[in-house]
Amino acid sequence: MLEAIFAPQAIAVVGASPDERKLGHTVLRNIVQNNFPGAIYPIHPTATEVLGHKVFASVAALPETPELAVVVVPPQAVLQVATECGEKGVKGLIVITAGFREVGSEGRKLEDELLAIVRRYGMRMVGPNCLGVIDNVAHMNASFAALMPLEGNIAFMSQSGAICTAILDWSVVEGIGFSRFVSLGNKADVDEVALLQAWNDDPQSRVILAYLEGISRGPEFIQVARQVTKQTPVIAIKSGTTDAGSRAISSHTGSLAGSENAYEAAFRQSGILRARTMQDVFDQALIFAYQPLIGGDRIAIVTNAGGPGILATDAVEHAGLQLARFERATIEELHAQLPPTANVYNPIDIIGDAKSDRYHTGIKAALADPNVDAVLVLFTPQAQSDVPETAQVIADLTAAQQANGGERIKPVVTSFMGEKSLGPALKILNERHIPNYPFPERAVAALKAMVAYKQWLDRPAGDYVSFDVDRERVQRTFDEVRGQGRLELGEVEAREVMAAYGMRLPESQLARSPEEAVEIANRIGYPVVLKISSPDILHKSDIGGVRAGIESANEARDAYELIEYRARRYQPNADIRGVLVQQQAPKGRECLVGVSRDPQLGPMIGFGMGGIYVEVLKDVVFRLAPLSQQEAQEQIEAIRSFPILRGVRGQAPADIPSILDTILRTSQLVTDFPEIVEMDINPLMVYDHGQGSIVLDARIILND
Amino acid sequence: MLEAIFAPQAIAVVGASPDERKLGHTVLRNIVQNNFPGAIYPIHPTATEVLGHKVFASVAALPETPELAVVVVPPQAVLQVATECGEKGVKGLIVITAGFREVGSEGRKLEDELLAIVRRYGMRMVGPNCLGVIDNVAHMNASFAALMPLEGNIAFMSQSGAICTAILDWSVVEGIGFSRFVSLGNKADVDEVALLQAWNDDPQSRVILAYLEGISRGPEFIQVARQVTKQTPVIAIKSGTTDAGSRAISSHTGSLAGSENAYEAAFRQSGILRARTMQDVFDQALIFAYQPLIGGDRIAIVTNAGGPGILATDAVEHAGLQLARFERATIEELHAQLPPTANVYNPIDIIGDAKSDRYHTGIKAALADPNVDAVLVLFTPQAQSDVPETAQVIADLTAAQQANGGERIKPVVTSFMGEKSLGPALKILNERHIPNYPFPERAVAALKAMVAYKQWLDRPAGDYVSFDVDRERVQRTFDEVRGQGRLELGEVEAREVMAAYGMRLPESQLARSPEEAVEIANRIGYPVVLKISSPDILHKSDIGGVRAGIESANEARDAYELIEYRARRYQPNADIRGVLVQQQAPKGRECLVGVSRDPQLGPMIGFGMGGIYVEVLKDVVFRLAPLSQQEAQEQIEAIRSFPILRGVRGQAPADIPSILDTILRTSQLVTDFPEIVEMDINPLMVYDHGQGSIVLDARIILND
Repeated sequence: MLEAIFAPQAIAVVGASPDERKLGHTVLRNIVQNNFPGAIYPIHPTATEVLGHKVFASVAALPETPELAVVVVPPQAVLQVATECGEKGVKGLIVITAGFREVGSEGRKLEDELLAIVRRYGMRMVGPNCLGVIDNVAHMNASFAALMPLEGNIAFMSQSGAICTAILDWSVVEGIGFSRFVSLGNKADVDEVALLQAWNDDPQSRVILAYLEGISRGPEFIQVARQVTKQTPVIAIKSGTTDAGSRAISSHTGSLAGSENAYEAAFRQSGILRARTMQDVFDQALIFAYQPLIGGDRIAIVTNAGGPGILATDAVEHAGLQLARFERATIEELHAQLPPTANVYNPIDIIGDAKSDRYHTGIKAALADPNVDAVLVLFTPQAQSDVPETAQVIADLTAAQQANGGERIKPVVTSFMGEKSLGPALKILNERHIPNYPFPERAVAALKAMVAYKQWLDRPAGDYVSFDVDRERVQRTFDEVRGQGRLELGEVEAREVMAAYGMRLPESQLARSPEEAVEIANRIGYPVVLKISSPDILHKSDIGGVRAGIESANEARDAYELIEYRARRYQPNADIRGVLVQQQAPKGRECLVGVSRDPQLGPMIGFGMGGIYVEVLKDVVFRLAPLSQQEAQEQIEAIRSFPILRGVRGQAPADIPSILDTILRTSQLVTDFPEIVEMDINPLMVYDHGQGSIVLDARIILND
Repeated sequence: MLEAIFAPQAIAVVGASPDERKLGHTVLRNIVQNNFPGAIYPIHPTATEVLGHKVFASVAALPETPELAVVVVPPQAVLQVATECGEKGVKGLIVITAGFREVGSEGRKLEDELLAIVRRYGMRMVGPNCLGVIDNVAHMNASFAALMPLEGNIAFMSQSGAICTAILDWSVVEGIGFSRFVSLGNKADVDEVALLQAWNDDPQSRVILAYLEGISRGPEFIQVARQVTKQTPVIAIKSGTTDAGSRAISSHTGSLAGSENAYEAAFRQSGILRARTMQDVFDQALIFAYQPLIGGDRIAIVTNAGGPGILATDAVEHAGLQLARFERATIEELHAQLPPTANVYNPIDIIGDAKSDRYHTGIKAALADPNVDAVLVLFTPQAQSDVPETAQVIADLTAAQQANGGERIKPVVTSFMGEKSLGPALKILNERHIPNYPFPERAVAALKAMVAYKQWLDRPAGDYVSFDVDRERVQRTFDEVRGQGRLELGEVEAREVMAAYGMRLPESQLARSPEEAVEIANRIGYPVVLKISSPDILHKSDIGGVRAGIESANEARDAYELIEYRARRYQPNADIRGVLVQQQAPKGRECLVGVSRDPQLGPMIGFGMGGIYVEVLKDVVFRLAPLSQQEAQEQIEAIRSFPILRGVRGQAPADIPSILDTILRTSQLVTDFPEIVEMDINPLMVYDHGQGSIVLDARIILND
C-alpha cells in the first residue's frame, strides 16, 4: 500500500527550478544529494539541466512513467500538473505547494478539485501544503527539510510541518533515527488512517509516532488503529484538545478539533498510547524502538547511589508499576559478590565507589531473576566511576540476553544522571540501543508506557453482541416525530424506542377514562403514577399533569379527573389522548446513560450514577460506540462511585449485568441510528443483583 | 547566620593528605585551586607541605583560629578533632567523613557524641557523611566534588551526595549557575531548617532548591518556610513519599519518611513549590533565577509556526493559566506591521518565513499590552530563520523593559525547538538569562510555577484565632482516663473534652432512675436517645444498651428499665452510673473531622463529608495544625463534594461557618495537647446556614 509514495523506482520533481532559492530546487537537491537510487526527472518549463540531471518540459514529455511526482509549482498550476500526472499513469503525488484549504474558501475549492483529479486517475496524494516525505528505507528525501534524519526504526507522521522541522533538528543531535518521516499537510487524500494502514506490520518500523491536530475520519481511525496497535505500538499526541487550543487550531489549518473526552476514549479504545507532551512522545518512542517488549510490570533497579534509587522507586510506585521482589538465590548471589555495605534488595545499591564490575554483578543477577520484567540502571558520576566501561557493560549484558536465547529477553533502560562526564557513555548507550534518560522519572515513565502497551496486547479481542431488536419500529417512530415537525421525542415515543431495543420499562398503559385507569391500575398493582398524555403538553409536571403515589382505586379515579381538568384548563383545545397509568417503580440505585455525538469521532456514551454523582462530582466515564462487552464492563467499573454499585456497608451488589445490557443496547441503537444526536436514560433505576434495572425516563433528540 | 560555614576568613582542612588518592587531598585541592581568598591550613600528622601550603600537626597548633574546619579523618578520629576545634574556638565544621548514623546503632552513638561536642562548644556543623559545601560567593569549594559549579543565583541543598554530583555534572554543561551548593549528609546539626533561615533574604540567591528525603523538625520547618517563602521562592522535591520509596530510604540513610498527605499539606501551607521530578526542579528554578516575578496569569505566545503554538495553548489551558486577550491597539499594531497571513490574535503567529524583525514586532507588542503578564516565545528552525539574531532580539527586548523602567517588567521565556541549528542561539539566551525549554509544555509548566508563587505572595497572612477554652478540664479528663489504665476515651469523657473546647453537643444528662429519665426527657424535648453509662461497658450498642427514637414519657421509662436490665444481665457487677438521656439530633449533612499525628510533621486534620464520600470516594482533604482561618476555609472548599455543602438543586447552603469553627477548635485542641494521637468527630451533623452543627460522636486516643 502506498508503494508509489514510499518505494518509487523513479521520481519526477515538478517545479525543479535551477534557482537555489526556490523550494523546488531544494526538494530536488534533497532527493539527489541523499542518494536516491532510482531515476530522477526534474520538470521545468525553461531549464535544461539542474544538479546534473536532464530537465524535461512536462510530465507528458518524460521517457518513462515515474511512480511518484513531487509537485512544487504555484497553486494555480497544481491542477494542471496533477491532470498531466494522471494521464501519464503516475500513481503517487506529494504536493508541497501551499495555498489550498488553509487559506480559506477559494483554497478549499481548489483543493476539492485537486482531490477530484487524484481520485479520477486512481492516484494517492500526500499534501497539499506539506514539508514532504522522507523515507530512510527507500533513501528518499522528497522534502524541503534542511536535514536528512538519521536511520532508525521509528515511523513519524505530523500534521505540522514546523514540528517536523523542529524534531529533525533535535533528533540528529540526540541520535534518534527514523524509518519514515511524513509531513501530512492538509491531508486531502493520504491521512493518518491511510498511513497507519500503510505502516502496519512494516518490518522497518518498530513504533509509529503521530502528531495530530484533528482526525479526519474518526470511526475508521479507531477501527484501523485497533488492528494496527495489535502489531505495532502507536504513540500519538493530539493537540488542540482544550477550548483555547481548538481556537488556535482553527486559525491555523481550519481543522476542527474534537472534544477532549472523545479523544481520550478513542485512544484508549484503540490501544494508542497517548503522550501528553512532545518530550513524552520521544521518551516513549525510544524504548519501543530500542528494546524488546516487556513481559510484565516488575521493575528491578540497579544504582550506585541511594538518592536516585529512591526517586526511581517513588516513580515506579506512582506509575502503578511493581518493584520486583527478588528470589532468594538472587539475594544470596548479590550478597556473595557485592561489598557488605551494598543493598542487595531492590533497588540494588552497589554504592558510590562502584566500578563497572559491580554493575555487571547487579544487572546480571536482576536479569536472571524470574521475578524481574525489566531492569532500570541508574548511574551518577562518582570519583571512582569508570563511565564508558559501565555503559559498555550494560550494553553487553543486554545484548547477551539475545545471544543466550531461549528465555525471555528483558528490556533494559538507563538513567545516567549528569552530562559533562557522560559524553562517551551516552554515545555507547545510544549506539547499542539502550534508551537513556537524563532523570530517573522519565525512564520510569517510558517503562510505564511499555507496560500499558503490553496490557493492551494481552487484552482479549472485544466481543461485540448484537441484540435482536425491532429497527423498523424505531424508524417508524422517528418518521412520525419528524412528520409532526419535531426533533425531540415525547415520553410515549421514547418508550417505544426503548421497548423496541429490548430495554425494560415500568409497566404502563394509556387509559381513556377514569374507569379504565382504575382497571389498569388494579392489574398493574399499586402504587401507580398517572400522567397526562397529549402531544400538546410537553412539560407535564408544570401544569400539575402528573400524580405519583396513587395507592387505591379511589385515588386513581380522583387523579384521572383532576389531571384531565387541569389539562383542559391549561389548554382547552389540547389533543388529549388520555392518561398514562404507570407502575411506580420502587427505589433503587439511580444511574444515567447519556449519549452525545462527537462531530469527528461519532456517538459517545457516558455512564455514571445519577444525581450528585454526575452533577456535582462529575463522576462520568465516556466511551465511543460501538462498545464491546469488555469495554462496557470496564466503563462501568471505571466510575469512582463503582464501589456503591458493588455494594458498600453490607449492602447487596447492584444488578451490574443489567447496566451492561442497557449500555450495549444503547450502543447498538445509536450506531444503528446516526440520526440520534442526543439521548439520555435518566434515571436508569438499578435494583439489587438479580432484580434488573428499569428505564424510568428517556430523552431522545434527532438531527435536523 | 552560619557565617562560619558560608563566609569563613580562614579554613583548616583536617586530614589534608599529600596522597592524591585520599579524599582529604581532593578537598584541599578543591579549596586551593578554586581560589579561596582566605588563609588555608592543611592539618596532617606527618606531612609538612601539601599543594604549596604549610601543614600543621593539629588544630591546636595553628597560628590563628580559623572560623571553619573541614574534617576528613577516619570516623574514630572525628570526635577528637571536633573537641580540638571546639577548644581552639573554631565556629563551623563540615564533617565529610562517613560511618555514622547511616551504618547502624554504633554509628548513631558516635554521631550523638559528635553532636554533643558541637553543641558544647557552640559550633555549627554540616554533615557528617556529606560531599561538602560549595559557596560561589565566598569562592569556596569545601567538597570532594570533581567540578566547581558555575556562578549563578540558585542556592541548592541536597540530602543525597550523589544527587549533588549528578546535578553538578549536568549543570556545568547546561549553563546553570549556583550561589551556594550544600550536601546535607546526615544533617546531625545543620539541617534544611537551618539552611532556609541562613539563606532567607540572601541577596546572592534568587531561588532556593532542596532535594529532601526526610524532614527532621517538621513543625519548625513549616514555620520557617512560611516566612522564607514570602521573600524567596523555595522549590523542593521530597522523595520517599510512597511506601516503596520510604523503604528504599530507610535502607539508605535511616531517615524516616513522612506520609505523602502530610508532606503535601506541609508544602502547600508553607508556600513551598513542590516539584514532582528532578527535571521540574530545574525547569522551575531557571525562571525564578533569570526572570522578574510574574504579575498575573495572562500569557502571550509568539510563534513562527502553528503546531507549537497549539501545543503551548493547550498547555496554558491545562495549567489553569489564561491566554491573554490583547487590547485593540495591540491587534491593530500587529496588523499594520505583520504580513496579512500572520495571526495577530494570541498566539501571534508570525509565519514560518519570519526573520528576527517579525519576532521583534510580535514580542514588543505583547510586552506593551497591559493585558499580558508574561510572554512565551516559540521558535522552530525554518529555511529563512536567522537563529542567533532572533535570540538576540528576544534578549534585547527583555532587557529593554528594565531600561525603560517605570512600568511593570514582565518575564519572557522561550522554547527554541530543535538542537542542531540552535547552538549559538541557546548560548545567547542562557547568557542573557532567558530561560529556554526544548519543548513548549515545559516552558508553560515553569510559568505556572511562577504564577503559583505569585498567588502565594498575594495571599494575606493567615489569621490565627485562639478560642477561650477550658484546658484544665481536658487535662483532668485525660488524667482520669490514664489513671484508669486506658488510652481511649469513653463517650462521656469525649463529650467533656469537646464541651471544654466549646463545641456544640446534643443536650444530654445522666439519669439515675426511670423517673429522672422522664423528667430530663420532658425538659430536653422528644425524641431522645437513651444510652447505658458504665465504664465497664464500652460497646453499648452490642448489648442493646442504646435506644433511639424515644417519643414519650412512657417510652422513656420503658427504655430505662430495659437498658438497665440488659446491662445487669450482660455483667452483673458492672459499675452502672445510670442512663444518659440525650437529645436526638435531627438529620443534617453528615461531615467528619479526623486527626492523625504524622511522626515528622505533627497533627494533621482531615475533613470530608461522612459516609460514602469519605469511605468510597476518598474525598478528604488534609491540612497540618495549627490552621489559620483561611487555611481551614480553603480546606472545606477543597473537597470535591463541597457543592453539596454550598447547596445543590435548590437546597439551602449548609452552615459552613460552624464547620470552620469546629475545625479551628479541633486544631487548637490537638496543638494544645500533643498527647492526642488520634481523634475523630464523626459525624459532625451540619445543619442549614444559621443553624450550626452538632458533634454527634467523638473518639479520642492518647499516646502511651
